[in-house]
Amino acid sequence: MNQVNIPATNKPVVVIIGGGFGGIEVAKKLRGQPVQVIILDKHNYHTFQPLLYQVATAGLEPDSIAYPVRKIFKKQKNFVFRVAEVLKIVHDINCVQTSIGSIRYDFLVISTGTKTNFFGLKDVQNNAMVLKTLPDALNLRSLILQNFEETLLITNLDDRDSLMSVVIVGGGPTGVELAGALGELKRFVLPRDYPELDIRKMQIHLIERSPRLLPAMSAKASSKSLQFLEKFGVQVWLDTAVENYDGRKVALSNGKMINSQTMIWAAGVKGAIVEGIEDALGESGRRLQINNTFNVVGHDNVYAIGDVAEMQTRAHPNGHPMLASVAIQQGRHMARNIRLMLKNKPALPFVYKDKGSLATIGRNKAVADLPFIKTQGFLAWFLWISIHIVALVGFRNKLVAFVNWGWSYITYDKGIRLIIRRFEKKGGNS
Amino acid sequence: MNQVNIPATNKPVVVIIGGGFGGIEVAKKLRGQPVQVIILDKHNYHTFQPLLYQVATAGLEPDSIAYPVRKIFKKQKNFVFRVAEVLKIVHDINCVQTSIGSIRYDFLVISTGTKTNFFGLKDVQNNAMVLKTLPDALNLRSLILQNFEETLLITNLDDRDSLMSVVIVGGGPTGVELAGALGELKRFVLPRDYPELDIRKMQIHLIERSPRLLPAMSAKASSKSLQFLEKFGVQVWLDTAVENYDGRKVALSNGKMINSQTMIWAAGVKGAIVEGIEDALGESGRRLQINNTFNVVGHDNVYAIGDVAEMQTRAHPNGHPMLASVAIQQGRHMARNIRLMLKNKPALPFVYKDKGSLATIGRNKAVADLPFIKTQGFLAWFLWISIHIVALVGFRNKLVAFVNWGWSYITYDKGIRLIIRRFEKKGGNS
Repeated sequence: MNQVNIPATNKPVVVIIGGGFGGIEVAKKLRGQPVQVIILDKHNYHTFQPLLYQVATAGLEPDSIAYPVRKIFKKQKNFVFRVAEVLKIVHDINCVQTSIGSIRYDFLVISTGTKTNFFGLKDVQNNAMVLKTLPDALNLRSLILQNFEETLLITNLDDRDSLMSVVIVGGGPTGVELAGALGELKRFVLPRDYPELDIRKMQIHLIERSPRLLPAMSAKASSKSLQFLEKFGVQVWLDTAVENYDGRKVALSNGKMINSQTMIWAAGVKGAIVEGIEDALGESGRRLQINNTFNVVGHDNVYAIGDVAEMQTRAHPNGHPMLASVAIQQGRHMARNIRLMLKNKPALPFVYKDKGSLATIGRNKAVADLPFIKTQGFLAWFLWISIHIVALVGFRNKLVAFVNWGWSYITYDKGIRLIIRRFEKKGGNS
Repeated sequence: MNQVNIPATNKPVVVIIGGGFGGIEVAKKLRGQPVQVIILDKHNYHTFQPLLYQVATAGLEPDSIAYPVRKIFKKQKNFVFRVAEVLKIVHDINCVQTSIGSIRYDFLVISTGTKTNFFGLKDVQNNAMVLKTLPDALNLRSLILQNFEETLLITNLDDRDSLMSVVIVGGGPTGVELAGALGELKRFVLPRDYPELDIRKMQIHLIERSPRLLPAMSAKASSKSLQFLEKFGVQVWLDTAVENYDGRKVALSNGKMINSQTMIWAAGVKGAIVEGIEDALGESGRRLQINNTFNVVGHDNVYAIGDVAEMQTRAHPNGHPMLASVAIQQGRHMARNIRLMLKNKPALPFVYKDKGSLATIGRNKAVADLPFIKTQGFLAWFLWISIHIVALVGFRNKLVAFVNWGWSYITYDKGIRLIIRRFEKKGGNS
């Protein structure tokens, strides 16, 4: 395999796989250090993943939650970026093989995030939509709108209902926020767009295997989010699993069947593992096992941070929660450790600082478990909006998101109802 | 062919093919009238076509220049919208056949706009990009950015130059505005994004067959736009035609060759004609011939407006210019005539009121031929920005465009440099 054309250097090379929250943070905090920092990502932009559901439900444009990687680093001289897919890590020779050639590293940081876990349900995998990337979100937006346009053309009532209905699997933050946003569309937007249709027939189902929504949050957050969702007309199924989905009928573990031509699978993820590092997967086989300095078990100068990594601690025996704030803290600490190692000092163990979590259900309705306050309703919603505006990368993106949200709030409208590229159902998520 | 499922009515049915500037205006001005208004369009949104080049050059997000058709008409009770492609007009039975079934009409308004005219140059058609729709603009944006990412990977200097270079064919408003926007990218944005590349090697060529740019505007506008473009580093070729393009080399009528892997064809259009109406094409075979009440020659209750139509008048022997303001005036007048005909009064002849035209080359640089003033430079640019902000449909779109332009102006930056969907060169425009 050819070497990738990279500016020559005699400094140590830090290769970072993945430009998510963790990877970006490592590179930023190595600014001005005597290293060459290389980020590899399949896309030329960083995605603000927690807001993908807003793109899927016409609340934000894709451009507001994406930020060009090169723009983040435009003034950082030790930074190199390449759009590439990493195919294999060849640890013996400190080298990653990619779609554009091979690259040598002195330090390797794996921050590849997760991919969807279908738990072996092949039919679900072939027929469900997922929500991991911007194209996924745009496909979902197109599909929901296309379904409504198609409903207008048919007269069979069963087909109409199943075209209008949506089943969301997984009651974590993604599922809950998506269900809430669809509930808002159903209540405020779609009746105005489709006066010819009886929008009450649109059913939004949210299916969660455990006894409560948002299992990682407080009991109060769970019960309030359930209450908010039911107010928006979402039908929540707790203690229920999906057994099969053929593209039209959802078979549930309680024996019931739901008619729906749209299923969104948000029920589980696993680490996005690169070939050559599989031996570091833990018993669950889902995430890379790391020690308290992010070192991947069994690989000297290879590190993993963020959702792909599992650091087992007393407080978090199954690793830290998969949150942007965890990845950012880990990225920052990873960079600090690299700076220490460059000076031949020992790396310091990572200590996680819980920043809490929030989920929004819709207009004036959110739940927040924060270190200083647990709250539900308007205040939580206001906190959610504020935190997300601040967290969005780049002033332009903040301002555009602020305009969109302000506009939606005042008008009860969601402006981005565009089928820019038709989604053609083919089946088969990888 | 099945009838399309449309709400039953005993009122006259006005079918409008195409939701561009003209078609939208007809439907709006028939609000509250005793007719059923049906718009058919391939997309669920109206595109603000004059700003497509801004999307292609990362200046605006696609969502700012698109507006959902249903949203425009959400309070109009006599309005019906269907996403459909019209296949054929069967005039004998007052019926259009579409991709979703057939629809009967009492009045038919054809406002399908134009499609690209390659003048029989097959190789150009297979290898050039066009800029007619939002997906076209997004493909072009992706391609330009992909080319730069690819340039980083190769070492052959000739290949590098041809990947970075862009050839624009056609010195009308689209070609001039696109060339100017690319010139800005080259000057202000790309050097910061790609410090590894020698951006001076990026060549932007603009090729125009006639002796001057913007042939439809004043001589002063032509000479000033040439001067502005040259200041931005654009190489302008006047009195020059393209003879061939194989995807790598552009053969010019003056015998010269230009190396470029990206050509954008903006050199000509022809009416987007629907089957069943070809007999109304004029001698040039490019547009539907209409009389001064928009009646398509030889077809009683069929009308055509906007770019697809050609009303020959003393002032405009080849029909009116292809401008949004013409289509809007014609749409408004068409609706007025339908209202008259409903009352059994005769339709009134259309009189065009010239609103002038503008073209922007870049930062502080535009040319304007307006009824009250002909000006070039900052004032023209300021007028251009103001008129386009006002003309964008919807407050949200205006505000987001304003934010983006304001942001770009202050920072010399264009924020939307995203390859959201990779463009795969396949060749073959239809």
